[in-house]
Amino acid sequence: MSQLRFDPLQERWVIIPSGRARQPSDFFVSREEIRLAFSPFSEGNEGRTPPEVFALRPEGGEPNTPGWEVRVVPNKFPVLGIEGDTAIRVDGPHEWMDGVGVHEVVVESPDARKDLTDLTPEHVARVFRACQARLRDLVRDRRLRYLLVFKNHGVEAGSTISHSHTQIIGLPVTPITLRQELQASRKHYDKTKNCLFCDLLKSEIARGDRVIVQNDLCVAVAPYASRFPFEVTVSPTAHAHDFSESSDELLDAFGAIVHDVLLRIKHVLKDPPYNFALHTAPNVEAEPRPADHWQTLDRDFHWHLEIMPRLTRVAGLEWGSGIYVNSMPPEDAAAFLRDAT
Amino acid sequence: MSQLRFDPLQERWVIIPSGRARQPSDFFVSREEIRLAFSPFSEGNEGRTPPEVFALRPEGGEPNTPGWEVRVVPNKFPVLGIEGDTAIRVDGPHEWMDGVGVHEVVVESPDARKDLTDLTPEHVARVFRACQARLRDLVRDRRLRYLLVFKNHGVEAGSTISHSHTQIIGLPVTPITLRQELQASRKHYDKTKNCLFCDLLKSEIARGDRVIVQNDLCVAVAPYASRFPFEVTVSPTAHAHDFSESSDELLDAFGAIVHDVLLRIKHVLKDPPYNFALHTAPNVEAEPRPADHWQTLDRDFHWHLEIMPRLTRVAGLEWGSGIYVNSMPPEDAAAFLRDAT
Repeated sequence: MSQLRFDPLQERWVIIPSGRARQPSDFFVSREEIRLAFSPFSEGNEGRTPPEVFALRPEGGEPNTPGWEVRVVPNKFPVLGIEGDTAIRVDGPHEWMDGVGVHEVVVESPDARKDLTDLTPEHVARVFRACQARLRDLVRDRRLRYLLVFKNHGVEAGSTISHSHTQIIGLPVTPITLRQELQASRKHYDKTKNCLFCDLLKSEIARGDRVIVQNDLCVAVAPYASRFPFEVTVSPTAHAHDFSESSDELLDAFGAIVHDVLLRIKHVLKDPPYNFALHTAPNVEAEPRPADHWQTLDRDFHWHLEIMPRLTRVAGLEWGSGIYVNSMPPEDAAAFLRDAT
Repeated sequence: MSQLRFDPLQERWVIIPSGRARQPSDFFVSREEIRLAFSPFSEGNEGRTPPEVFALRPEGGEPNTPGWEVRVVPNKFPVLGIEGDTAIRVDGPHEWMDGVGVHEVVVESPDARKDLTDLTPEHVARVFRACQARLRDLVRDRRLRYLLVFKNHGVEAGSTISHSHTQIIGLPVTPITLRQELQASRKHYDKTKNCLFCDLLKSEIARGDRVIVQNDLCVAVAPYASRFPFEVTVSPTAHAHDFSESSDELLDAFGAIVHDVLLRIKHVLKDPPYNFALHTAPNVEAEPRPADHWQTLDRDFHWHLEIMPRLTRVAGLEWGSGIYVNSMPPEDAAAFLRDAT
């Protein structure tokens, strides 16, 4: 069984997956993206994956057969598993938990050669609808405190399978990055009765120099203190704390703007590797646990997608201190992306 | 002038260096390590660097001439500069500061072809003595709240010059990673009157399965919740909160064990890229500032060096949530490194 281990200095959980014993030689070569002659994720190869947990089939049809547009399957090599419980166990001065969780793959299209920018904006919206459907189902597992949607595009961004896909991980803890954002947002809310993210957005839209693109319901901004060159945050313009509660109309606008931003990034930066991660409210249905349970109020969080092109190498300063050096001022990054056609 | 910008969601500072305007094309290709026909850091090329701020010259001799063993010079392309002050400025909802700080390069040996493992253990100790000498000098700049010693070895670890060197950055803020460790340690101290790190070390030494090597005064351990495969923490075995107060005897033992651990890593993992970062107490001489000033008590912090081989790619889960997946259990990593000859 996988383990979650707590680092008492950083107050951070680390996943130690189960699986065969690893050898140093497993780490000699940089991992390569698997470009198979056929992709196990392609239409027609449905039998090569674990049985699907969700699929969008506009014409209907049986599960695990062709005819889908977006398909969600359990990860064949999950870093967390469904067995176990969420009791915190003690081992001398250390704390650990069973590696309880889920790990799913959202196959974004039946075609192994297409990435998100090759799909239509409407299709990208359908990818996010599939994520939403899974999140709505997964919150019923009350052991899962946080559901993270993320994507690795390209080898440098950690992708190991080239067929374009997004991942969902359900975690029995609220990750430290989210806890930090939730706490900072709550502090601001307690002081001002405003959403911190709304206040920041209002200022960004008024200034305009870090705005990349906007549509009816969503906006893409280069964050003021971007860690990485060409980092972009996409979010609903109006307040919304929980991605899974989004209307179809909002997800259509969101899919369209994400498609647009990824196209700009691809064009300006020559198809760079990138990661994205969705920051949304934690699972309010989760079993309470005093240590790290977090009850979001509606007004004190604002969901958003962080898009992080992987253009530079993170080095000792960043790993050792958490201080990032970003040599591309966000105002300049926004201008380059705004001007891209 | 460089800027430090504050991210209010993550409560984290980011450095935006000054310098020429950057173009997207600066980020197209992975940065290459500069392997010059001659190294500007080599003996005889002293005129190619800014004037030295420190050097170990066993036979004496003039500054900026040959005859040195370890030499410290200002970084020619510093990410922070000495001009400016540490006032926090407000820009709408944002906070920023002048990019005040220092950025120095510790050239570890006169020979461009030698890395730390090619030097003698005594020479590695002299590298750390040079760092200590610089730290003792730099604390007199009361604007500098934290002095970070770190190293990038290999392109994948962010190195851009192959001549082996360590870096020192003096920062006007206490970095988030350190603040977190200082706070967790203080909490433990307030509760138990013990040093958290001492308590962890005591348990590790008693168990032994995560200990890699020990000498009279220092110990190398694979941390219980390692973020990365084959991560190693090296520290004095006895309590010591401030690296810059180390005795020569302690630095000799520390240099020897760091040399030993790096040799084991080189052997077991075929000379992988790695980073290291020194976590020590903040500058107690720094000007007070309520928001982020931190007065370390002697007993509530324990200095240590984090050595992080760069063997895997960090992906969306880690960047997006702070949850790391480490597929090499630290007990196994310790066994492989312990058994290396």
